[in-house]
Amino acid sequence: MATSSSMSGFPEWLPEMELIQQKLIETVRHQYQLHGFAPLQTRSIELISDLLSKGEDADKEIYALRRISEEPGNDSESLGLHYDLTIPFARFVSQNRGKLTFPFRRYQIQQAWRGERPQLGRYREFIQADADVIGMNTLPVRYDGDLIRILRDTLVAMALPPIKVMVNNRKILEGFYRGLGIEDITSTLRTVDKLNKIGADGVRKVLSERGLSEQQVDGALAIAQIECDADGLEQVRSLGVSHELLAVGLDELETVLRAAPSVGNVEVVGAMHIARGFDYYTGTVVEGILADHPQLGSICSGGRYDNLASDAKVKLPGVGVSIGITRIMGYAEHLGLFSPTRRTPAVACILVDNEDTRADSDAIADRLRARGIPCLVSDKARAYGKQIKAANNLGIRYVWFPSSGEVKDIVTGEQAPADADTWQPAAETGSWKD
Amino acid sequence: MATSSSMSGFPEWLPEMELIQQKLIETVRHQYQLHGFAPLQTRSIELISDLLSKGEDADKEIYALRRISEEPGNDSESLGLHYDLTIPFARFVSQNRGKLTFPFRRYQIQQAWRGERPQLGRYREFIQADADVIGMNTLPVRYDGDLIRILRDTLVAMALPPIKVMVNNRKILEGFYRGLGIEDITSTLRTVDKLNKIGADGVRKVLSERGLSEQQVDGALAIAQIECDADGLEQVRSLGVSHELLAVGLDELETVLRAAPSVGNVEVVGAMHIARGFDYYTGTVVEGILADHPQLGSICSGGRYDNLASDAKVKLPGVGVSIGITRIMGYAEHLGLFSPTRRTPAVACILVDNEDTRADSDAIADRLRARGIPCLVSDKARAYGKQIKAANNLGIRYVWFPSSGEVKDIVTGEQAPADADTWQPAAETGSWKD
Repeated sequence: MATSSSMSGFPEWLPEMELIQQKLIETVRHQYQLHGFAPLQTRSIELISDLLSKGEDADKEIYALRRISEEPGNDSESLGLHYDLTIPFARFVSQNRGKLTFPFRRYQIQQAWRGERPQLGRYREFIQADADVIGMNTLPVRYDGDLIRILRDTLVAMALPPIKVMVNNRKILEGFYRGLGIEDITSTLRTVDKLNKIGADGVRKVLSERGLSEQQVDGALAIAQIECDADGLEQVRSLGVSHELLAVGLDELETVLRAAPSVGNVEVVGAMHIARGFDYYTGTVVEGILADHPQLGSICSGGRYDNLASDAKVKLPGVGVSIGITRIMGYAEHLGLFSPTRRTPAVACILVDNEDTRADSDAIADRLRARGIPCLVSDKARAYGKQIKAANNLGIRYVWFPSSGEVKDIVTGEQAPADADTWQPAAETGSWKD
Repeated sequence: MATSSSMSGFPEWLPEMELIQQKLIETVRHQYQLHGFAPLQTRSIELISDLLSKGEDADKEIYALRRISEEPGNDSESLGLHYDLTIPFARFVSQNRGKLTFPFRRYQIQQAWRGERPQLGRYREFIQADADVIGMNTLPVRYDGDLIRILRDTLVAMALPPIKVMVNNRKILEGFYRGLGIEDITSTLRTVDKLNKIGADGVRKVLSERGLSEQQVDGALAIAQIECDADGLEQVRSLGVSHELLAVGLDELETVLRAAPSVGNVEVVGAMHIARGFDYYTGTVVEGILADHPQLGSICSGGRYDNLASDAKVKLPGVGVSIGITRIMGYAEHLGLFSPTRRTPAVACILVDNEDTRADSDAIADRLRARGIPCLVSDKARAYGKQIKAANNLGIRYVWFPSSGEVKDIVTGEQAPADADTWQPAAETGSWKD
């Protein structure tokens, strides 16, 4: 529909869709700023060694860079495009920690690149909108609650269809598994994380093949199927497994869930199967989906990373959330969630009587622009009907007749005298769909 | 000062500078939208063959991409990062011409990459802010005037130091050279374009070595040194060279200069030495510099390209302008043009009496945010003095005492009772410098 499919995995939106994308991005930016997060843009390029040391299977997905005038084997062979915004942010904070004020809050809205096989919701180039806070030495779990609340408020402001935000804590899963005597925590986490994809039977099969006992598999599946609010965490405790880490994790998750109760179309739940793929998460993990379309992938995610930015000298624990702008756009297009009509930011088109009086129309446009009203002047001094049709094609609601000084509302059909120094268009509906 | 110099040529701004960069970007975006330009983001990646066919020496500067899990020689070897936004835009328009309304106006604010040797004002990754219009079949020179006027208005709105916008038309130079019997137009253009860098003697030397006669060199230098307004174009005519293309070029430039007279701190002049490096320009060319710092490079540029987007079936002539956001930031930092104090978008910090009453402070913050006022809550319930100092370190002007319900203005020292549902901070100065 509105994508240019000339290169698979690299979406490009036509103006009517890009206007929606910009509105979503502006909404996110505004919310992050309201909460005092400072803007940041990191370079798109990182040392491949830095990228490789962090995530699961990241090595397959990195785009390496080389100047084409340069012989292979040169230094810049070691450069690659970042595949998320968290690793670059942690690197930036670690490098600049003497120049920053902690806890350091930043938001970052930027592209990332992964050389994955393209499919619905999976792109090779995509825009993410992240908010993170990194503390010096310590960062109380209160910040995990703050970030989930900011994520919730931002999703509410985006006016998307119903969203389910699922929160968990890796300490719960790790503590629970250790309490059950499971030793291979990482692969168990990853398998359980796929519960929604491969189902309980699938998880059971994989875990059994990995050598877990029936009791261990039963336990891992029992906890994975719990979904609850803060009070409901009793269900986990009542499974009868005990471990110090489990208790810590349950306390942390309770704090987070109490800080960010469900609001409006955004439901926030504790969901014990959520683990997230990246290795760097150490506590809170979060993942949000379109509630009515659970078969689609997550549209936002995040978590706590206590060691990503830390080095030998100092601990720099962090927690953050990420909203997948391109993925939301892709799902929205796939589901037919909107039918955009505007193809320009202009709300008014000043008609032109004839080319000799074009300057009069330009002058009206300048007066509107001086008051912050986006507008266009007709490209051709044709018959009014044709000029109005051209404006309508762009989704422009108002046309301005320079000789009579009247403005016509194409939607209502009303036409009335107007003064370019005072006229105002009707307030926008605020819906992201048009 | 405020850059992280961890990788040469890839600038990263600290929050106090990034806040300024975001303000500049928002100003440009707002101006482009006021003129009815639609947002566009093209993919960062193009076929290297498309990139190579266009610009001067572009082959040395392109970053090629390869997935690191992939054997060399694979298809994706032919992909590279774009080095400007004009070529991707032309490619996008050509590919989507059946889905766009012409003349198609778009703005695009995005990174570009060039593997050049980094130096002041020259980066390997940089942000450009472009506005272009492409017509179907024809695009009258009126649009060249529109674009220069939009560039001028945008530069005025950015509130930068004095700027000199120099406009020329390649037809003038080509016609003039042809009238003088000069055959190698391209290399003569490129040599004359360096007038400000290598001086008249330098240009004379290079042109003479290329085999131009003394009369040809004299002529090329004579026109190159003319700087004038629309009326002053007579000076070119009075040089006594005549050629059909020269006459067309002079008419076009006159139209452009009359459409965009100097305003405020932005001077617009006809400057006969301006040619621009890219091969794709066919008429109007423009370049802007900081007027008080002519030794620095251009901060904006652009021109007319009649064939860039065209193919065998259809002509798609375009004209556009580009503002070098990263370069402006780099020059401003180099020249010490600003001394930023704010390190957060928050304008108020709600203090915390003790951790048990943090929820009260959060509630005040929520009420401010609901009215669009960015704020923070103190990170620690320390003594008020320490909390105020922490807020001041971030450049936050107002601190809010939750128990007394009073707000203190750190700048004026005033303290007064305030209601979170009505309180407003003082209007910002609007200066980009703080």
